[in-house]
Amino acid sequence: MKGLHIIADLYGCRNRELLASSAMLRETCVAACKAVGLTVLGDHFYQFDGLDEAQVGGATGAVVFAESHLAVHTWPERDGATLDVYVCNVTCDNSGKAERLYGMLAESLAPAESLVERVSRGRDLPLRKKRLAAVK
Amino acid sequence: MKGLHIIADLYGCRNRELLASSAMLRETCVAACKAVGLTVLGDHFYQFDGLDEAQVGGATGAVVFAESHLAVHTWPERDGATLDVYVCNVTCDNSGKAERLYGMLAESLAPAESLVERVSRGRDLPLRKKRLAAVK
Repeated sequence: MKGLHIIADLYGCRNRELLASSAMLRETCVAACKAVGLTVLGDHFYQFDGLDEAQVGGATGAVVFAESHLAVHTWPERDGATLDVYVCNVTCDNSGKAERLYGMLAESLAPAESLVERVSRGRDLPLRKKRLAAVK
Repeated sequence: MKGLHIIADLYGCRNRELLASSAMLRETCVAACKAVGLTVLGDHFYQFDGLDEAQVGGATGAVVFAESHLAVHTWPERDGATLDVYVCNVTCDNSGKAERLYGMLAESLAPAESLVERVSRGRDLPLRKKRLAAVK
Protein backbone atom coordinates (compact mmCIF):
# COMPACT_ATOMS: atom_id res chain seq x y z
CA MET A 1 0.00 0.00 0.00
CA LYS A 2 2.90 2.34 -0.59
CA GLY A 3 1.75 5.38 -2.45
CA LEU A 4 1.96 9.10 -3.10
CA HIS A 5 -0.73 11.46 -1.86
CA ILE A 6 -0.64 15.04 -3.12
CA ILE A 7 -2.65 17.35 -0.85
CA ALA A 8 -3.24 20.80 -2.30
CA ASP A 9 -5.11 23.87 -1.08
CA LEU A 10 -5.47 26.41 -3.88
CA TYR A 11 -6.13 30.12 -3.36
CA GLY A 12 -7.13 32.93 -5.68
CA CYS A 13 -8.27 30.56 -8.42
CA ARG A 14 -8.84 32.54 -11.60
CA ASN A 15 -11.03 29.97 -13.36
CA ARG A 16 -14.23 30.93 -11.57
CA GLU A 17 -16.42 29.17 -14.11
CA LEU A 18 -14.76 25.86 -13.24
CA LEU A 19 -15.07 26.51 -9.49
CA ALA A 20 -18.82 27.02 -9.88
CA SER A 21 -19.77 24.14 -12.19
CA SER A 22 -19.78 20.53 -11.04
CA ALA A 23 -20.49 19.39 -14.61
CA MET A 24 -17.47 21.21 -15.99
CA LEU A 25 -15.32 20.15 -13.03
CA ARG A 26 -16.34 16.52 -13.53
CA GLU A 27 -15.53 16.64 -17.23
CA THR A 28 -12.15 18.28 -16.55
CA CYS A 29 -11.24 15.80 -13.79
CA VAL A 30 -12.24 12.63 -15.62
CA ALA A 31 -10.53 13.77 -18.83
CA ALA A 32 -7.32 14.61 -16.93
CA CYS A 33 -7.30 11.22 -15.16
CA LYS A 34 -7.61 9.46 -18.51
CA ALA A 35 -5.06 11.74 -20.17
CA VAL A 36 -2.35 10.78 -17.67
CA GLY A 37 -3.11 7.07 -18.02
CA LEU A 38 -5.11 6.35 -14.86
CA THR A 39 -7.87 3.73 -15.09
CA VAL A 40 -11.12 5.50 -14.23
CA LEU A 41 -13.70 3.25 -12.53
CA GLY A 42 -16.38 5.82 -11.71
CA ASP A 43 -17.11 9.15 -10.06
CA HIS A 44 -19.62 11.19 -8.13
CA PHE A 45 -19.93 14.98 -8.38
CA TYR A 46 -22.40 17.34 -6.73
CA GLN A 47 -23.44 20.91 -7.40
CA PHE A 48 -24.15 23.11 -4.39
CA ASP A 49 -26.70 25.90 -4.61
CA GLY A 50 -25.53 29.40 -3.76
CA LEU A 51 -26.73 30.79 -0.45
CA ASP A 52 -28.38 33.72 -2.23
CA GLU A 53 -28.34 35.43 -5.61
CA ALA A 54 -25.07 37.22 -4.83
CA GLN A 55 -23.22 33.94 -4.28
CA VAL A 56 -22.87 31.04 -6.70
CA GLY A 57 -22.65 27.52 -5.30
CA GLY A 58 -19.54 25.40 -5.20
CA ALA A 59 -18.86 21.95 -6.57
CA THR A 60 -17.54 18.80 -4.98
CA GLY A 61 -16.66 15.36 -6.22
CA ALA A 62 -14.44 12.34 -6.36
CA VAL A 63 -13.09 10.13 -9.12
CA VAL A 64 -12.32 6.54 -8.19
CA PHE A 65 -9.64 4.91 -10.31
CA ALA A 66 -7.85 1.59 -10.16
CA GLU A 67 -4.75 3.29 -8.75
CA SER A 68 -6.78 5.03 -5.93
CA HIS A 69 -8.62 8.39 -6.10
CA LEU A 70 -8.92 12.08 -6.87
CA ALA A 71 -11.09 14.36 -4.74
CA VAL A 72 -11.88 18.01 -5.37
CA HIS A 73 -13.91 20.63 -3.51
CA THR A 74 -14.45 24.25 -4.52
CA TRP A 75 -15.54 27.46 -2.79
CA PRO A 76 -16.24 29.94 -5.59
CA GLU A 77 -17.31 32.58 -3.08
CA ARG A 78 -13.74 32.48 -1.77
CA ASP A 79 -11.94 31.66 -5.04
CA GLY A 80 -10.65 28.53 -3.32
CA ALA A 81 -10.38 24.82 -4.02
CA THR A 82 -8.79 21.72 -2.57
CA LEU A 83 -7.32 18.86 -4.57
CA ASP A 84 -6.33 15.39 -3.38
CA VAL A 85 -4.54 12.99 -5.67
CA TYR A 86 -3.66 9.62 -4.18
CA VAL A 87 -2.06 6.84 -6.18
CA CYS A 88 -0.98 3.53 -4.73
CA ASN A 89 2.31 2.11 -5.89
CA VAL A 90 1.68 -1.52 -5.01
CA THR A 91 2.37 -3.11 -8.37
CA CYS A 92 4.20 -0.23 -10.06
CA ASP A 93 5.18 3.39 -9.39
CA ASN A 94 2.29 5.67 -10.36
CA SER A 95 3.83 8.81 -8.83
CA GLY A 96 4.50 10.37 -12.24
CA LYS A 97 0.83 10.01 -13.18
CA ALA A 98 -0.20 11.63 -9.90
CA GLU A 99 2.14 14.58 -10.49
CA ARG A 100 0.91 15.06 -14.05
CA LEU A 101 -2.73 14.86 -12.92
CA TYR A 102 -2.13 17.43 -10.20
CA GLY A 103 -0.31 19.67 -12.67
CA MET A 104 -3.12 19.54 -15.22
CA LEU A 105 -5.84 20.31 -12.67
CA ALA A 106 -3.87 23.09 -11.00
CA GLU A 107 -3.29 24.62 -14.42
CA SER A 108 -7.04 24.45 -15.12
CA LEU A 109 -7.98 26.11 -11.83
CA ALA A 110 -5.20 28.71 -12.21
CA PRO A 111 -4.57 29.55 -8.54
CA ALA A 112 -2.61 32.63 -7.50
CA GLU A 113 -1.17 30.61 -4.64
CA SER A 114 -1.00 26.93 -3.65
CA LEU A 115 -0.20 25.09 -0.46
CA VAL A 116 0.95 21.66 -1.55
CA GLU A 117 2.05 18.76 0.61
CA ARG A 118 3.27 15.41 -0.67
CA VAL A 119 2.72 12.51 1.69
CA SER A 120 4.61 9.31 1.05
CA ARG A 121 2.09 6.81 2.34
CA GLY A 122 2.34 3.37 3.84
CA ARG A 123 4.95 0.76 3.33
CA ASP A 124 5.32 -2.47 1.40
CA LEU A 125 3.05 -5.19 2.63
CA PRO A 126 3.74 -8.84 1.99
CA LEU A 127 1.07 -10.99 0.44
CA ARG A 128 -0.61 -13.24 2.99
CA LYS A 129 0.99 -16.62 3.58
CA LYS A 130 -2.04 -18.33 2.12
CA ARG A 131 -1.50 -16.46 -1.13
CA LEU A 132 2.21 -17.19 -1.13
CA ALA A 133 1.46 -20.88 -0.61
CA ALA A 134 -1.06 -20.86 -3.45
CA VAL A 135 1.38 -19.54 -6.02
CA LYS A 136 4.14 -21.99 -5.21
CA MET B 1 -10.92 25.99 3.52
CA LYS B 2 -9.42 25.15 6.87
CA GLY B 3 -10.01 21.53 7.64
CA LEU B 4 -8.83 18.28 9.15
CA HIS B 5 -7.60 15.42 6.98
CA ILE B 6 -7.04 12.05 8.64
CA ILE B 7 -4.78 9.83 6.54
CA ALA B 8 -4.64 6.22 7.68
CA ASP B 9 -2.88 3.12 6.41
CA LEU B 10 -4.20 0.02 8.13
CA TYR B 11 -2.34 -3.29 8.38
CA GLY B 12 -3.36 -6.76 9.45
CA CYS B 13 -7.07 -6.02 9.12
CA ARG B 14 -9.02 -8.86 10.71
CA ASN B 15 -12.35 -8.12 8.99
CA ARG B 16 -11.48 -9.86 5.74
CA GLU B 17 -15.10 -10.03 4.63
CA LEU B 18 -15.30 -6.24 4.67
CA LEU B 19 -11.98 -5.89 2.82
CA ALA B 20 -13.30 -8.08 0.02
CA SER B 21 -16.82 -6.70 -0.49
CA SER B 22 -17.47 -3.30 -2.06
CA ALA B 23 -21.19 -3.65 -1.25
CA MET B 24 -20.54 -4.24 2.42
CA LEU B 25 -17.84 -1.57 2.50
CA ARG B 26 -20.20 0.95 0.89
CA GLU B 27 -22.96 0.17 3.35
CA THR B 28 -20.57 0.45 6.30
CA CYS B 29 -19.07 3.74 5.07
CA VAL B 30 -22.34 5.48 4.22
CA ALA B 31 -23.96 4.36 7.49
CA ALA B 32 -20.96 5.59 9.49
CA CYS B 33 -20.97 8.99 7.73
CA LYS B 34 -24.64 9.42 8.55
CA ALA B 35 -24.20 8.14 12.12
CA VAL B 36 -21.65 10.86 12.93
CA GLY B 37 -23.84 13.58 11.43
CA LEU B 38 -22.18 14.19 8.06
CA THR B 39 -24.41 15.15 5.12
CA VAL B 40 -23.97 12.44 2.48
CA LEU B 41 -24.39 13.67 -1.11
CA GLY B 42 -23.45 10.51 -3.02
CA ASP B 43 -20.82 7.83 -3.46
CA HIS B 44 -19.12 5.53 -5.90
CA PHE B 45 -17.74 2.10 -4.99
CA TYR B 46 -16.12 -0.54 -7.17
CA GLN B 47 -15.45 -4.25 -6.74
CA PHE B 48 -12.18 -5.59 -8.14
CA ASP B 49 -11.97 -9.14 -9.39
CA GLY B 50 -9.32 -11.36 -7.84
CA LEU B 51 -6.33 -12.16 -10.03
CA ASP B 52 -7.03 -15.87 -9.73
CA GLU B 53 -9.11 -18.25 -7.64
CA ALA B 54 -6.63 -18.12 -4.76
CA GLN B 55 -6.99 -14.35 -4.39
CA VAL B 56 -10.19 -12.42 -3.76
CA GLY B 57 -10.51 -8.93 -5.23
CA GLY B 58 -10.34 -5.70 -3.27
CA ALA B 59 -12.80 -2.86 -3.00
CA THR B 60 -12.43 0.85 -3.54
CA GLY B 61 -14.71 3.81 -3.16
CA ALA B 62 -15.45 7.34 -2.09
CA VAL B 63 -18.30 9.04 -0.29
CA VAL B 64 -18.86 12.69 -1.08
CA PHE B 65 -20.48 14.68 1.71
CA ALA B 66 -21.25 18.35 2.20
CA GLU B 67 -18.30 18.67 4.59
CA SER B 68 -15.84 17.06 2.05
CA HIS B 69 -15.09 13.35 1.54
CA LEU B 70 -14.19 9.86 2.67
CA ALA B 71 -12.11 7.54 0.49
CA VAL B 72 -11.27 3.91 1.15
CA HIS B 73 -9.22 1.31 -0.70
CA THR B 74 -8.62 -2.29 0.33
CA TRP B 75 -6.10 -5.02 -0.49
CA PRO B 76 -7.58 -8.24 0.95
CA GLU B 77 -4.65 -10.27 -0.42
CA ARG B 78 -2.45 -8.22 1.93
CA ASP B 79 -4.98 -7.64 4.77
CA GLY B 80 -4.50 -3.93 4.16
CA ALA B 81 -6.63 -0.85 3.67
CA THR B 82 -6.27 2.91 3.44
CA LEU B 83 -8.74 5.43 4.82
CA ASP B 84 -8.97 9.16 4.10
CA VAL B 85 -11.36 11.34 6.01
CA TYR B 86 -11.33 15.02 5.10
CA VAL B 87 -13.71 17.55 6.62
CA CYS B 88 -13.61 21.26 5.91
CA ASN B 89 -14.14 23.60 8.82
CA VAL B 90 -15.20 26.67 6.86
CA THR B 91 -18.50 27.41 8.58
CA CYS B 92 -18.05 25.26 11.70
CA ASP B 93 -15.57 22.81 13.22
CA ASN B 94 -16.30 19.31 11.90
CA SER B 95 -13.14 17.75 13.35
CA GLY B 96 -15.07 15.77 15.97
CA LYS B 97 -17.21 14.17 13.25
CA ALA B 98 -14.07 13.25 11.29
CA GLU B 99 -12.50 11.61 14.33
CA ARG B 100 -15.67 9.66 15.12
CA LEU B 101 -16.00 8.53 11.50
CA TYR B 102 -12.39 7.38 11.42
CA GLY B 103 -12.86 5.59 14.75
CA MET B 104 -15.95 3.74 13.56
CA LEU B 105 -14.37 2.59 10.31
CA ALA B 106 -11.10 1.56 11.93
CA GLU B 107 -13.09 -0.44 14.46
CA SER B 108 -14.97 -2.15 11.61
CA LEU B 109 -11.78 -3.06 9.73
CA ALA B 110 -10.06 -4.14 12.96
CA PRO B 111 -6.40 -3.56 11.98
CA ALA B 112 -3.56 -5.02 14.00
CA GLU B 113 -1.58 -1.87 13.27
CA SER B 114 -2.34 1.61 11.93
CA LEU B 115 -0.22 4.43 10.56
CA VAL B 116 -2.29 7.56 11.08
CA GLU B 117 -1.42 11.11 10.15
CA ARG B 118 -3.56 14.15 10.85
CA VAL B 119 -3.05 17.05 8.47
CA SER B 120 -4.42 20.43 9.46
CA ARG B 121 -5.26 21.81 6.03
CA GLY B 122 -5.44 25.27 4.58
CA ARG B 123 -6.18 28.52 6.29
CA ASP B 124 -9.09 30.89 6.63
CA LEU B 125 -10.01 32.57 3.37
CA PRO B 126 -11.96 35.80 3.24
CA LEU B 127 -15.07 36.02 1.13
CA ARG B 128 -14.53 37.91 -2.11
CA LYS B 129 -15.04 41.68 -1.97
CA LYS B 130 -18.04 41.38 -4.27
CA ARG B 131 -19.73 39.09 -1.78
CA LEU B 132 -18.84 41.33 1.14
CA ALA B 133 -20.29 44.31 -0.70
CA ALA B 134 -23.49 42.41 -1.46
CA VAL B 135 -24.21 41.56 2.16
CA LYS B 136 -23.70 45.07 3.52
